[in-house]
Amino acid sequence: MKKIIIVGGVAGGATAAARLRRLNEDAEIILFERGEHISFANCGLPYYIGETIKQREKLLVQTVEGMTNRFQLDIRTQTEVVKINPIEKVIEAKNLKTGVKYVESYDTIILSPGASPIIPSFNGLEKANNVFTLRNIPDTDRIKSFVDTNKPQKATVVGGGFIGLEMAENLVERGIEVTLVEMADQVMAPLDKEMAAIVHEHLFEHGIQLLLKDGVKAFHENGQKIELNSGKIIGQDIVILSIGVKPESKLAKEANIAVHERGGILVNEYFETSQKDIYAIGDAIVINDYIAKEETFIPLAGPANRQGRMVANNILGKKEPYLGTLGSGIAKVFELSVATTGLNEKVLQSKNKEYEVIHIHPASHATYYPGATPISLKVLYDKNTLNILGAQAVGKNGVDKRMDVIATAIRGNLSILELAELELTYAPPFSSAKDPVNMVGYVASNIIDDEMETIQWYEVDELVNNGATLIDVREKEEFANGAIEGAVNISLTELRNKLPELDSTRPVYVHCQVGLRGYLACRILKNHGYQAINVDGGYKTYELAKRWK
Amino acid sequence: MKKIIIVGGVAGGATAAARLRRLNEDAEIILFERGEHISFANCGLPYYIGETIKQREKLLVQTVEGMTNRFQLDIRTQTEVVKINPIEKVIEAKNLKTGVKYVESYDTIILSPGASPIIPSFNGLEKANNVFTLRNIPDTDRIKSFVDTNKPQKATVVGGGFIGLEMAENLVERGIEVTLVEMADQVMAPLDKEMAAIVHEHLFEHGIQLLLKDGVKAFHENGQKIELNSGKIIGQDIVILSIGVKPESKLAKEANIAVHERGGILVNEYFETSQKDIYAIGDAIVINDYIAKEETFIPLAGPANRQGRMVANNILGKKEPYLGTLGSGIAKVFELSVATTGLNEKVLQSKNKEYEVIHIHPASHATYYPGATPISLKVLYDKNTLNILGAQAVGKNGVDKRMDVIATAIRGNLSILELAELELTYAPPFSSAKDPVNMVGYVASNIIDDEMETIQWYEVDELVNNGATLIDVREKEEFANGAIEGAVNISLTELRNKLPELDSTRPVYVHCQVGLRGYLACRILKNHGYQAINVDGGYKTYELAKRWK
Ligand SMILES: Cc1cc2nc3c(=O)[nH]c(=O)nc-3n(C[C@H](O)[C@H](O)[C@H](O)COP(=O)(O)OP(=O)(O)OC[C@H]3O[C@@H](n4cnc5c(N)ncnc54)[C@H](O)[C@@H]3O)c2cc1C
Ligand SMILES: Cc1cc2nc3c(=O)[nH]c(=O)nc-3n(C[C@H](O)[C@H](O)[C@H](O)COP(=O)(O)OP(=O)(O)OC[C@H]3O[C@@H](n4cnc5c(N)ncnc54)[C@H](O)[C@@H]3O)c2cc1C
Ligand SMILES: CC(C)(COP(=O)(O)OP(=O)(O)OC[C@H]1O[C@@H](n2cnc3c(N)ncnc32)[C@H](O)[C@@H]1OP(=O)(O)O)[C@@H](O)C(=O)NCCC(=O)NCCS
Ligand SMILES: CC(C)(COP(=O)(O)OP(=O)(O)OC[C@H]1O[C@@H](n2cnc3c(N)ncnc32)[C@H](O)[C@@H]1OP(=O)(O)O)[C@@H](O)C(=O)NCCC(=O)NCCS
Repeated sequence: MKKIIIVGGVAGGATAAARLRRLNEDAEIILFERGEHISFANCGLPYYIGETIKQREKLLVQTVEGMTNRFQLDIRTQTEVVKINPIEKVIEAKNLKTGVKYVESYDTIILSPGASPIIPSFNGLEKANNVFTLRNIPDTDRIKSFVDTNKPQKATVVGGGFIGLEMAENLVERGIEVTLVEMADQVMAPLDKEMAAIVHEHLFEHGIQLLLKDGVKAFHENGQKIELNSGKIIGQDIVILSIGVKPESKLAKEANIAVHERGGILVNEYFETSQKDIYAIGDAIVINDYIAKEETFIPLAGPANRQGRMVANNILGKKEPYLGTLGSGIAKVFELSVATTGLNEKVLQSKNKEYEVIHIHPASHATYYPGATPISLKVLYDKNTLNILGAQAVGKNGVDKRMDVIATAIRGNLSILELAELELTYAPPFSSAKDPVNMVGYVASNIIDDEMETIQWYEVDELVNNGATLIDVREKEEFANGAIEGAVNISLTELRNKLPELDSTRPVYVHCQVGLRGYLACRILKNHGYQAINVDGGYKTYELAKRWK
Repeated sequence: MKKIIIVGGVAGGATAAARLRRLNEDAEIILFERGEHISFANCGLPYYIGETIKQREKLLVQTVEGMTNRFQLDIRTQTEVVKINPIEKVIEAKNLKTGVKYVESYDTIILSPGASPIIPSFNGLEKANNVFTLRNIPDTDRIKSFVDTNKPQKATVVGGGFIGLEMAENLVERGIEVTLVEMADQVMAPLDKEMAAIVHEHLFEHGIQLLLKDGVKAFHENGQKIELNSGKIIGQDIVILSIGVKPESKLAKEANIAVHERGGILVNEYFETSQKDIYAIGDAIVINDYIAKEETFIPLAGPANRQGRMVANNILGKKEPYLGTLGSGIAKVFELSVATTGLNEKVLQSKNKEYEVIHIHPASHATYYPGATPISLKVLYDKNTLNILGAQAVGKNGVDKRMDVIATAIRGNLSILELAELELTYAPPFSSAKDPVNMVGYVASNIIDDEMETIQWYEVDELVNNGATLIDVREKEEFANGAIEGAVNISLTELRNKLPELDSTRPVYVHCQVGLRGYLACRILKNHGYQAINVDGGYKTYELAKRWK
């Protein structure tokens, strides 16, 4: 009878335990969990604080009793594994209620200890009594009870990642005025800047004060004041620190398990660590980026759950290699859905990849059917292989669907051109006869076939400053409502008639609102012998990006 | 300068015209449309009648003026192409307003004439003054004005395809009592019976009287009464005939273009008909079924639009082969979304394919986050190749997304097992850490690895009648609320303790509500040496299928 010890009883660990038992009724499975709860809904915690999730027990996906009964597990909560001795194949566990330590032998260990919130040693932090991080149920209880009892009026959320944004939203739901401080020049690092701009705009509309390119220097007055790097002082009644998480790899390191310099546990494709019979999964490990084929760290629940199942399979003799993580992610930010998969442009630039970019702004479904809203969709592909490298989407409806389709296309090795051929379900309440994802394939085919040349929003100003001709092909009223400096308005409708006015010896840059009419104009121009270049994503991408620069 | 004639100015025809012009500024493009409108939203018509779409002009995606201006087309509405002479390369057109006929030469023709509603020659139909079919704007105007003016109280919709269901819903929206008559034993032919049962239940909940396995024999009293094949007489104030469409191939046939025996125009992968320089696309053609690799007829807007673009490409020298149609489709039926892709079980049975079936009933998103609703998802795969053959889903939320992901997986040649590896976006408002599509992959892997054996709902009764042991592993209260005849209740919780009571020399059939606990029970049983078999989809699939049999 095999004796398997699992360290960590939530997403990865609990899933591994359940799968192990399903595959094998005899194994002795001991699940150690430092905290009081196992199998809780990490991802639901912000929404309980915001009272969208009303009952606390909903957060407990499984209880110790339920799991013990169903899966015949030996679950030991409030018990921390404090040491692993891989030579003697024993661990040392500490009962956190009694303080008693004891030794337990093992045949196999699964480490799924997760990642913990990063808390820098800010000056004054130790004296602050209103600063919280959010990882588990006790954290949640603390924050909720602080909000319920102290009724804070102002909150500062430090860090604009998805947990920071979810907390910002949920504090606003509780009637609190929120300031968001973010060191980078944008929130949501997986997005590129012009896509993040849409989120910035939306946060602004919801009354959140956004302080970008600034960070916490010190806490003052027990946390009532924060001094920022810029020298600015901001005041608040509660602070949420959400500047990222770091893999919990101390236990592993001390057991001489190889660990990445940035902290994650190193594993091979079967989740084996450098120590025999010790496996690791979830937020604590370094994984392979599915696209970049490089080591990376992607702390998400989907991968943790899948890895939990796979590690159980591997331990019990099914050899299943893990092919890497795409990093598909999504967050609700008030009415917006913000989703990404694969690599973004920043990363591709830093790698000097030969990539191409497409921005489109289609409707979530047929515009003649009520409720359609725009989706801003950016897709990146490899100029040489035409492989899809990554995608980003922001919008109110239908964002998750398009990102999942693209993530599936990547996994199925479809080229950017093959997106045009996808046969997606269509009826007016759900999509358009040409789905946004198909449209990306169309636009790509035009670029690849040299039917359309494009430039990006960040290339426009310099061109115009250097005297390039930029034509805004929108209608007069649209132009009057705001336009790119230096652009000349010749609407698509008039374009054919005004061709004689244009200098055919110089390239003509063209833009419209979202890119479609600009493309139509380019086709007319090219067919008449001009070199025409479309501003990808149109004024919409340009203007928002510039506004939130 | 090439002269291109397009017959039909809506989904396929208008798209082809637009793409032709984008690729080529010089071609002479004449678009003939028999009706008054081009580029209208066929798919929106039922919703205008139901007043979900409030403004009639929303149905006009493009106007003659708009299209002419933007794409420099020669658009001739209310003009029917009545003859094609492929030898002399001329067509004859008839102006339907004046009756004048004239001849026009061509270099290339694109036929996109669509499909027309099937109207059998029912006895008494010619005297009926309240019977309508729905294809275009004039039809819509007629129906809407009849409803607005005559205020019918009772309607009969004949035919339970997606147009019939959409009409049924939209008539109910107008406060009309609806009876739906369908010859088959189910609505929505692309669904299998047990999946259609969910739709039947929902129609029933919305007060629609469903008459299955019955058809119209004759109309009486000017359409106020219908006599059914069963002898039953039903009364109504308005009748919608929606029993299907047939390809408009008369024009093609008369021009000696090869046509399928069931009517569709035959084309090769470049949409070339048997006559040189004549292409055909859209509802009027026979296409290749992407999975079955057989001729089929799939009258949907997505394919028509894509084919419109491809035919333009092919005519102008880009050789793009069309790989076939999956038949991905979706309909909103009141609160339900009903979606399908690929082949269904009925078809697979008729082909004697060695397929396997999976039914699951997961939640649309994390159940701890408000608003999650169940999705019933059925996926079929090839037992030998593990290729995905088709899928069906019914539910209130997230149905379109899962179907699009599966359609994309099929296009990407992913096996049923690889669905487990898809990395889909997850946050509580959107999905679960194990997305329903991943779950299908998990269940499949268990079947393929012999971790779980399943039977289908339609196999249960015979087994029980022949004395098989069937254990219902749900809790006592669930069992008490309704159970399969002959099942014995031993809940999953008690199962391990009650093992000694079970005869290990005979197979043990097991079921729960949706299949998950049945699977867990099977694992326990198998690990203890029993042959255990799970009822796929559980009581939920069984009970609904039986109720609506
Ligand atoms: C607020 C919040 C919101 C989130 N939202 C999303 C989301 O929307 N989508 C998404 O994909 N992901 C989300 N995540 C991330 C997701 O929860 C994690 O990726 C996932 O839980 C990781 O699983 P894991 O098993 O690696 O670690 P965890 O689920 O964190 O479990 C690790 C457990 O191990 C225990 N442990 C650690 N060391 C020891 C030890 N030595 N002995 C005993 N026990 C130990 C810890 O107490 C912890 O409970 C969110 C996370 C948080 C905190
Ligand atoms: C009520 C309704 C709802 C629908 N809902 C959906 C849906 O939700 N999803 C979906 O995918 N599909 C839906 N469809 C189907 C979709 O509209 C068709 O698949 C699509 O329009 C087919 O395009 P087509 O170009 O082949 O034919 P059509 O769009 O029908 O265009 C053909 C045109 O050709 C004209 N024509 C025919 N012969 C001649 C001639 N000899 N000379 C001149 N003109 C001629 C006709 O007048 C017609 O306007 C729906 C259809 C209807 C009627
Ligand atoms: C609760 C928890 C332990 C459940 O783990 P689990 O049993 O592996 O997962 P599920 O209950 O979803 O069941 C999945 C199993 O049921 C099977 N299954 C699901 N539906 C089925 C059906 N209709 N018929 C047959 N089998 C079915 C699947 O194949 C899978 O079994 P397998 O892994 O042996 O193939 C784990 O998900 C957990 O701890 N979750 C909370 C923590 C967390 O994930 N946090 C991050 C997100 S908030
Ligand atoms: C109105 C109609 C003529 C438009 O046809 P269309 O011009 O091909 O389609 P769209 O307006 O969606 O534009 C698509 C084109 O814009 C391009 N495009 C879209 N967004 C773009 C962007 N942001 N930047 C650059 N190009 C863009 C696409 O690449 C495509 O061009 P291509 O085919 O040359 O590659 C046609 O769709 C129609 O008749 N529809 C109504 C009938 C119908 O479809 N009914 C059934 C469904 S209800």
